[in-house]
Amino acid sequence: MRPSGRAPDEMRTISIEPNFTRHAEGSVLIGFGDTRVLVTASIEERIPPWLRGKGEGWVTAEYGMLPRATHTRSQREAAKGKQSGRTQEIQRLIGRSLRAVTDLKLLGERQITLDCDVIQADGGTRTAAISGAWVALRIATNKLLEAGQLEKDPILTQVAAVSCGIYQGNPVLDLDYDEDSAADADANFVLLADGKIAEAQATAEGATYDEEGLLRLLRLARIGCNQIFAAQLKAL
Amino acid sequence: MRPSGRAPDEMRTISIEPNFTRHAEGSVLIGFGDTRVLVTASIEERIPPWLRGKGEGWVTAEYGMLPRATHTRSQREAAKGKQSGRTQEIQRLIGRSLRAVTDLKLLGERQITLDCDVIQADGGTRTAAISGAWVALRIATNKLLEAGQLEKDPILTQVAAVSCGIYQGNPVLDLDYDEDSAADADANFVLLADGKIAEAQATAEGATYDEEGLLRLLRLARIGCNQIFAAQLKAL
Amino acid sequence: MRPSGRAPDEMRTISIEPNFTRHAEGSVLIGFGDTRVLVTASIEERIPPWLRGKGEGWVTAEYGMLPRATHTRSQREAAKGKQSGRTQEIQRLIGRSLRAVTDLKLLGERQITLDCDVIQADGGTRTAAISGAWVALRIATNKLLEAGQLEKDPILTQVAAVSCGIYQGNPVLDLDYDEDSAADADANFVLLADGKIAEAQATAEGATYDEEGLLRLLRLARIGCNQIFAAQLKAL
Amino acid sequence: MRPSGRAPDEMRTISIEPNFTRHAEGSVLIGFGDTRVLVTASIEERIPPWLRGKGEGWVTAEYGMLPRATHTRSQREAAKGKQSGRTQEIQRLIGRSLRAVTDLKLLGERQITLDCDVIQADGGTRTAAISGAWVALRIATNKLLEAGQLEKDPILTQVAAVSCGIYQGNPVLDLDYDEDSAADADANFVLLADGKIAEAQATAEGATYDEEGLLRLLRLARIGCNQIFAAQLKAL
Amino acid sequence: MRPSGRAPDEMRTISIEPNFTRHAEGSVLIGFGDTRVLVTASIEERIPPWLRGKGEGWVTAEYGMLPRATHTRSQREAAKGKQSGRTQEIQRLIGRSLRAVTDLKLLGERQITLDCDVIQADGGTRTAAISGAWVALRIATNKLLEAGQLEKDPILTQVAAVSCGIYQGNPVLDLDYDEDSAADADANFVLLADGKIAEAQATAEGATYDEEGLLRLLRLARIGCNQIFAAQLKAL
Amino acid sequence: MRPSGRAPDEMRTISIEPNFTRHAEGSVLIGFGDTRVLVTASIEERIPPWLRGKGEGWVTAEYGMLPRATHTRSQREAAKGKQSGRTQEIQRLIGRSLRAVTDLKLLGERQITLDCDVIQADGGTRTAAISGAWVALRIATNKLLEAGQLEKDPILTQVAAVSCGIYQGNPVLDLDYDEDSAADADANFVLLADGKIAEAQATAEGATYDEEGLLRLLRLARIGCNQIFAAQLKAL
Repeated sequence: MRPSGRAPDEMRTISIEPNFTRHAEGSVLIGFGDTRVLVTASIEERIPPWLRGKGEGWVTAEYGMLPRATHTRSQREAAKGKQSGRTQEIQRLIGRSLRAVTDLKLLGERQITLDCDVIQADGGTRTAAISGAWVALRIATNKLLEAGQLEKDPILTQVAAVSCGIYQGNPVLDLDYDEDSAADADANFVLLADGKIAEAQATAEGATYDEEGLLRLLRLARIGCNQIFAAQLKAL
Repeated sequence: MRPSGRAPDEMRTISIEPNFTRHAEGSVLIGFGDTRVLVTASIEERIPPWLRGKGEGWVTAEYGMLPRATHTRSQREAAKGKQSGRTQEIQRLIGRSLRAVTDLKLLGERQITLDCDVIQADGGTRTAAISGAWVALRIATNKLLEAGQLEKDPILTQVAAVSCGIYQGNPVLDLDYDEDSAADADANFVLLADGKIAEAQATAEGATYDEEGLLRLLRLARIGCNQIFAAQLKAL
Repeated sequence: MRPSGRAPDEMRTISIEPNFTRHAEGSVLIGFGDTRVLVTASIEERIPPWLRGKGEGWVTAEYGMLPRATHTRSQREAAKGKQSGRTQEIQRLIGRSLRAVTDLKLLGERQITLDCDVIQADGGTRTAAISGAWVALRIATNKLLEAGQLEKDPILTQVAAVSCGIYQGNPVLDLDYDEDSAADADANFVLLADGKIAEAQATAEGATYDEEGLLRLLRLARIGCNQIFAAQLKAL
Repeated sequence: MRPSGRAPDEMRTISIEPNFTRHAEGSVLIGFGDTRVLVTASIEERIPPWLRGKGEGWVTAEYGMLPRATHTRSQREAAKGKQSGRTQEIQRLIGRSLRAVTDLKLLGERQITLDCDVIQADGGTRTAAISGAWVALRIATNKLLEAGQLEKDPILTQVAAVSCGIYQGNPVLDLDYDEDSAADADANFVLLADGKIAEAQATAEGATYDEEGLLRLLRLARIGCNQIFAAQLKAL
Repeated sequence: MRPSGRAPDEMRTISIEPNFTRHAEGSVLIGFGDTRVLVTASIEERIPPWLRGKGEGWVTAEYGMLPRATHTRSQREAAKGKQSGRTQEIQRLIGRSLRAVTDLKLLGERQITLDCDVIQADGGTRTAAISGAWVALRIATNKLLEAGQLEKDPILTQVAAVSCGIYQGNPVLDLDYDEDSAADADANFVLLADGKIAEAQATAEGATYDEEGLLRLLRLARIGCNQIFAAQLKAL
Repeated sequence: MRPSGRAPDEMRTISIEPNFTRHAEGSVLIGFGDTRVLVTASIEERIPPWLRGKGEGWVTAEYGMLPRATHTRSQREAAKGKQSGRTQEIQRLIGRSLRAVTDLKLLGERQITLDCDVIQADGGTRTAAISGAWVALRIATNKLLEAGQLEKDPILTQVAAVSCGIYQGNPVLDLDYDEDSAADADANFVLLADGKIAEAQATAEGATYDEEGLLRLLRLARIGCNQIFAAQLKAL
């Protein structure tokens, strides 16, 4: 029995509120249950130094958590003077995931930065961030297309992410905080709408797992991502 | 004529949404027009080292701005590895303002941290932060009173803040970004519900001002703060 | 009764020793009683990146306190690896104050940096710094005028600053450390020789204040600044 | 055809030189072909603050790369003043992997730190580090057992790691630098001697992959890890 | 011929102004010609963690240079966020030099910090700092003796330092900036009043030197230090 | 009697293994007894900004110690976020020593960086680093000469370094850790093959020393360096 009473393959409510803020080229407030992440997409007509002269663009991400997004207050990273290893690992994952569905040649010599800020955390912040970032990126890219700044759409397909885990011996979909902090294994899958996998990460926490376990988690992730793909399209 | 068409003594719409997030002991999303600041109050049963053994508590604040709260993206302070002088100046002001209405002896040996994070910026973020922080502090303190952890209310009165400025030669209330970036003088007043002043800061930007100008700005601030006091009470 | 025995509107002895060091284009050791600040003005033929191509110059300030300028030793900011919020707030104030009397167009594409280092602290270090910085800026600018590097004087008028406060219920001028650490309210005014105000900051410490109190502090500040203006001219 | 001429399921030469340095409680120089990583295990009779009083120990890891371990010199992280996101991600992975085979209760209130320093890099540095760290941990733990400081062996089984990837459309085992920099997908598997999985990470680089691809990579990893398990035992 | 017209074994004017500031337990402004260093000695009744329980005290030093002490402005170390290698090397040297004449057992469990801040630089700032630091330490220690906080004098003898160098082929004493920046070799000697050597550092800059050269520099240093020893005693 | 049983003028075994790693233009693993330092020389076709346009090159060094090179583990400098004063002092010394034998004009507009990483420490790490760095620099420069990128050899002669000290009243050569931590005085000499001195540093630790003592240490250093010069040539 899951703490929330959900079925093993049951997602939490997915909410996607596009255009949550007004300055960014794209913005969205995405919710997986009580987890809420604000994602903005910022277009800049400049690229990182190491890309200059290659005729390509770049998609990157930054991630942050408001100090009291969590049950107890954590110290502000800006005040500590550095980003934690966890933060850096997550923002690298978000960036890679979005680049997996972007043709950087078609994007041209510009950079899109996806800022993912967790307003409220209840497990799954990185997967909500990736799923919301696609919507923000889609909105921002649409503006470039409408303005004639892009001729061809650089977004190849949809991308979404969800966490799964083995909780009290059972594979379950979309872990909330109570499950996440007690899971035997914890996985994040980044999937494409065409069925392909962009990233699979499965970590033993309390107990190791086997090949069959890995496959069952992947299949749960497909169920979840299909629902997210639908919610993404509906929000646009 | 103000860019927004407002009268010189006209505030923007004040919106206060209490309990915007669920983990913090107090939380509020405050809006002055398009400016939106999320404030959370976190109670911790510990105090800064220099206060130990004095039987007093502490109220402090931190301030941050999401990278794309502004018209163009600014670099994330956590990524830069330090908080700007502006950020530090603002969080010191917020902390002082809230302490001006708190009896730290009555609060007892605990600390309340007010995290003020700007979701969207259109001028007046520090004054909105102070005004919202009072509501978050009030909600958090009420919980301590209800739980019997406090016997007597340490909050002495309401505090609110508003910006004023001299725009194209005329004193105006509650500057938005367009006015703020072109004002001759820019002031922030932190006022108490009993009419007293906690903080007055008036800075010449393009042109200096005189005593009469300072007084006119202060009187505009009273008009604005009275509206904020009403909105604070209504939100609770 | 003030601890020093001074009358409420009595400044401490103002001492200004120009050309205290020899490498800087302008330098001065200013004293307000036991407070002593060394200010140097450095002219550099370069401007901040964001000013390039605008045909304007820049005036900026940095502030530091020697570790044992104070009653007990404080940690060296260079060793801590960052400047405190207080330091940053003060150096922003000094820079703004000097820019309030400088025509940046007339200054041309060069930067003048005012380094204000507190040798000994007894209250009022930021106001002594501003008052001394004007002398250092004046000396440095005179050299540019004499050398024909400037055709027209970019310094519009004199600027000076002084602190005032409400001490044991009475408004007093030019707080020393004993008064400053016990004052109900603490204000800093930056005034121009033509009577205008560049900056007013009044902060409630132990007790809030009212409009009448603010005006009385401002009037004390005028008395003090007029004496500083005279001392500045005498020193040149 | 692989650049090295190896068969798709062929590992590079595995070399393990135990006791490479003399001060550490355990030390090993491990080589996967030209990749060489020095791992030391340091036992300290103290634990992280958040573990105090739980009667458990901790196993953690740090990772570094000598500036000229790589084809072109990279900047020293100590000189830059921070560890990259990649470094932090890797050292978190190494720590988790070793904890997956350690009973922290049996270890008692002590910490073992595995320092993994890359002397020479040619792909697969993190997997070599994990595989070598197990040997260093085993040597250090043996000393505790021999000295009677531990009654029961806290090491549950062997752990090893290897990278796999899809190179020019084909799944291959143990990527070297030439393959790694051109692979379509890049995976790291951390496996236990009992056949269980501690960590699976598979990332699309140039092209996404499918479930079948993921399984084929996992099976290659089993082949590689079995050889590493044998080399670990032989080295002891 | 030296740029200053001095004889090869001629020191610049030594000036020592004790009690230059009033808060520190000891303070001195020392000048070697145009080089001027303010040194304060701060006594704290605490010791570094690694000394606890040994019944000994500690003497340490910090060194800083005001941004415009030099011919052209250098960046403030507090603003850069770190102390340069040169600064750290100098403050380590000053601390060692003073500890060479202090019986740390007799000092008892307290720390004396010597803050050496260069007000104006014209070569020889580290040697002036050491020479002045001894006076500040002497004054501070005298206060402890007078107050009965120390029974026996922990200062064993005088210490002084001076630079020498090979300038245009000739050994010369007490290099000023013009000589220092063009010297073939540059040496600093820290000598005791009893004739012993605490530190000798001789560095080839443009040309290497031989044993005879090293001895000639050491003999020049003796001439200089004897004059400094006399000036130290006269100042007290 | 020395702890190791060596005669006062007896070096530890000198081992030099050239080409220890394969990516660097020059590399060497040097051992003085149990002290082992890996040195790589990296050639980059760029120079520091302040050298641009002078037609000269630069030789610089960086130094690091693996966390468990020492008897007890020390914190990783990359994790602490800064290099210690000791590290910076050593890398400045190594750079100066190598520049003393390099004609920077002949080197041309390129930079050679010598990375010295201590694999195992038993006293004398900085002197082993200098002695090994010469070999790495020689190998790298030979490659430039062979490739025709240099016409004339910029290496003027050999350089080597060794530590000496006064241990239990006796001058001894090449201190190991046991001697170093108990020595009365500790010296490092950097000598050239032509008999000249590039750097002499002699520091009193427990007891000061005299001119005669300094000369005896220098003469021991000559004995040691002559053996290192021979070992350098043999290794090439």
